[in-house]
Amino acid sequence: MNIILVEEQEIHGGRVVLDDRRAVHIHKVLRATVGDRVRVGLVNGPMGSGTLTSVVTGRPPRVELTVELSEHPADRPEIDIILALPRPIMLRRILSQVAALGIGTLFVIQANRVEKSFWDSSLVEEHEYLEHLRHGLEQAVDTRLPHVRIFKKFKPFAEDFLPQVKGDYRFRILAHPYGTSTLAGYLEPGPGRILLAVGPEGGWVDFEVERFAAQGFRCCSIGERILKVDTAVVALHARISAIRELLGQSAK
Amino acid sequence: MNIILVEEQEIHGGRVVLDDRRAVHIHKVLRATVGDRVRVGLVNGPMGSGTLTSVVTGRPPRVELTVELSEHPADRPEIDIILALPRPIMLRRILSQVAALGIGTLFVIQANRVEKSFWDSSLVEEHEYLEHLRHGLEQAVDTRLPHVRIFKKFKPFAEDFLPQVKGDYRFRILAHPYGTSTLAGYLEPGPGRILLAVGPEGGWVDFEVERFAAQGFRCCSIGERILKVDTAVVALHARISAIRELLGQSAK
Repeated sequence: MNIILVEEQEIHGGRVVLDDRRAVHIHKVLRATVGDRVRVGLVNGPMGSGTLTSVVTGRPPRVELTVELSEHPADRPEIDIILALPRPIMLRRILSQVAALGIGTLFVIQANRVEKSFWDSSLVEEHEYLEHLRHGLEQAVDTRLPHVRIFKKFKPFAEDFLPQVKGDYRFRILAHPYGTSTLAGYLEPGPGRILLAVGPEGGWVDFEVERFAAQGFRCCSIGERILKVDTAVVALHARISAIRELLGQSAK
Repeated sequence: MNIILVEEQEIHGGRVVLDDRRAVHIHKVLRATVGDRVRVGLVNGPMGSGTLTSVVTGRPPRVELTVELSEHPADRPEIDIILALPRPIMLRRILSQVAALGIGTLFVIQANRVEKSFWDSSLVEEHEYLEHLRHGLEQAVDTRLPHVRIFKKFKPFAEDFLPQVKGDYRFRILAHPYGTSTLAGYLEPGPGRILLAVGPEGGWVDFEVERFAAQGFRCCSIGERILKVDTAVVALHARISAIRELLGQSAK
């Protein structure tokens, strides 16, 4: 936890009282005492610091902070991700990883090779996935919670929803081991949002590839190695970020 | 398991008999029957295919294959990684992820902020870490096992070992959140191996940064976001690969 995240409704006259895992972290891990300052951020708002005004030991401890939040958060990340629902243990990791890496929106969708039982996971419920996204922000020192949208059926997503939003994206990438394009061959310098679609274990089926292609997605491969979904999401995000930064520099 | 890996000593006159998790995979997951072909590779050797000549059901099943291995494996990856020993659950994941992404050698080392108890993990023993590296190769369809070297003390590694091998590397990168260089500002086109050092949770201490700097390592940051070690390893590997590919293309 590299930043303590608080909600608007927890702040009363510049003061915050904590008695959950954040209090435990401040008291037990940081070992902060009255007068110490810790990094604090408002969820979807500014960052700054909190000064400890009271620590009451106990299980859990009770910590009081005076907060000063005046630093603007980072810009909204330019990458959004479409993710075919992976198995719960993997989704949990991916939620915190994409929040840590920085994305705007995560669209979690059904695909042919998604096991039906994955949809029974409580992770697709808001109170659950928000928790893991917050872990990612706490790790990365960010306050901007990614949006999450869930689509339990593929066709309405691909045929009704995608046509409405595709215009928001300058680059639409379908990650595919047999893609003929490369990320470097497709991405260009200059502003514009990026929508990246990552398939299930086993990949997208032909019908899905066609539906994405019909919405202007380019099939891109990052080489012949087949990666697990969680590794692929991080590797793709990192490669896209690196290429965009490098192209941006050379365009100047 | 996207490729069945076998050892030299398991092949007798072009035939292999399997009765472990590979046999379970062929029989239960691939549901292959006599006459079917599966992808097979020789550890640290060529790839090719295996044709099922016999399947005896049971627990475990017993599968016999005739193998034909004539495809050269991919070139040795140009990236080696120095990793401050992470907690076991994270090391396990990193082992299979780096094998899947492709590296030459993994140097696992002590650092100031590595918890002593991590060294008690059985994962730093050869039969354990090899298993997880193999999982990564099976995922990525590769046969080239990364080398692993373990250094339980930092000073002999940094002061005795690094000076001997640093000449093998054209680029030496110390991943550091407060690094002043970027990967794109440091890497260049053309051949040359890359040595990437990734610190423990909490980062390298000043003494360690100085020792790496003395061996010609460049402190590089990938932005202000603080990533967990496993996310950082994948993101750094992906960024380095993307930048090298892009620089290689533009140099032509």
